Amino acid sequence: MSSVRVHNFSVSLDGFAAGEGQQLDAPFGHAGMRLMEWAFGTRTFRAMEIHGEPGGSVGVDEAFASAWNVDVGVEIMGRNKFGPYRGPWNDEEWKGWWGDDPVFHTPVVVLTHHSRPTLQMAGGTTFHFVDAEPSTALEQARELAGGRDVRIGGGADTIRQFLAADLIDRMHIVLVPILLGRGERLWEGFDGLEDSFDIEAVPSPSGVIHLTFTRRS
Amino acid sequence: MSSVRVHNFSVSLDGFAAGEGQQLDAPFGHAGMRLMEWAFGTRTFRAMEIHGEPGGSVGVDEAFASAWNVDVGVEIMGRNKFGPYRGPWNDEEWKGWWGDDPVFHTPVVVLTHHSRPTLQMAGGTTFHFVDAEPSTALEQARELAGGRDVRIGGGADTIRQFLAADLIDRMHIVLVPILLGRGERLWEGFDGLEDSFDIEAVPSPSGVIHLTFTRRS
Repeated sequence: MSSVRVHNFSVSLDGFAAGEGQQLDAPFGHAGMRLMEWAFGTRTFRAMEIHGEPGGSVGVDEAFASAWNVDVGVEIMGRNKFGPYRGPWNDEEWKGWWGDDPVFHTPVVVLTHHSRPTLQMAGGTTFHFVDAEPSTALEQARELAGGRDVRIGGGADTIRQFLAADLIDRMHIVLVPILLGRGERLWEGFDGLEDSFDIEAVPSPSGVIHLTFTRRS
Repeated sequence: MSSVRVHNFSVSLDGFAAGEGQQLDAPFGHAGMRLMEWAFGTRTFRAMEIHGEPGGSVGVDEAFASAWNVDVGVEIMGRNKFGPYRGPWNDEEWKGWWGDDPVFHTPVVVLTHHSRPTLQMAGGTTFHFVDAEPSTALEQARELAGGRDVRIGGGADTIRQFLAADLIDRMHIVLVPILLGRGERLWEGFDGLEDSFDIEAVPSPSGVIHLTFTRRS
């Protein structure tokens, strides 16, 4: 069975994966881009079309960053990783935060209670809008993945749902040494999660701490 | 001016410094002793009278653990680090969790709204029960410290008060890779605390991550 994985998911020291007040021009709300700064310097993120710059660091941040798409055949994301809008889709012309040629290059399952036709983008990304529980969404995602792994792309609420349903095999969480004070918490509940996962911590010269969670067999 | 310091203060990955349901036989509530296990193996903690065993580790956990009392002349603690009882002191015969010969060997200021005579213990520890705001309590503590440093001993609420009053110079926080799900949070508010402190992270083979916060001058 293919693995279900989380990669490059940043959390502040006080546990927030996003700030308050997500908007079109502020995907992380009042947090700005502080949670992702560690990544922007890496070769992997600079090479993505959305940034499009050559070069970049090749140390431990890059080692982790570069793993995000290896053997991944599909991403599952929450609606708020696609765009800031809630409720019915009023503007289907707007095709999400990810531009005309999104970085995924695979099918992407967007979890939403509001239906919308599948969006075929350039570069191999297709957005499928799915209203389903985690286990059903995972089944659908696996059908799209062609035997490859499934990435749970976030946000925090989506990861929490898949964790609560006991569907995640491995996670790479990046602890960023900042405090946000408010926003969306990754950890709610999960008392004793360490019993189900081996947890490693690796600090980076950039200041962040890479945490890996590997499900115990 | 002497420094105001926090040492060996453990927090779970989800940000809790204690579990729920503190009681006489459960100082950390449902967390049990999981938050402090990293410390019990160290030479410093084993040498404390309360544990009283020889030997112990001498690696990075010990390096941090052993710093807790160096040049410290007084501790300030919240009432719930002294004992689990709330409200007026009904049983003054009970002299706290710390035994007849407490580990501090210095004056200790216990913050409480309920007055109680100073308690002189064996080994140089005296508990002074003080009803005061952080800045006033700190002044009193400094008078007792004989020019040496002031340790803020916790719990979380006490550290939060001193942080909010901008009175802390350095902190050693131990991030323990467990999730508690509920309890007492260390971090409430403090958006942008990283602007005031240099933060370093050092992982230990024991699995914990030692974080140091050093106030920027």
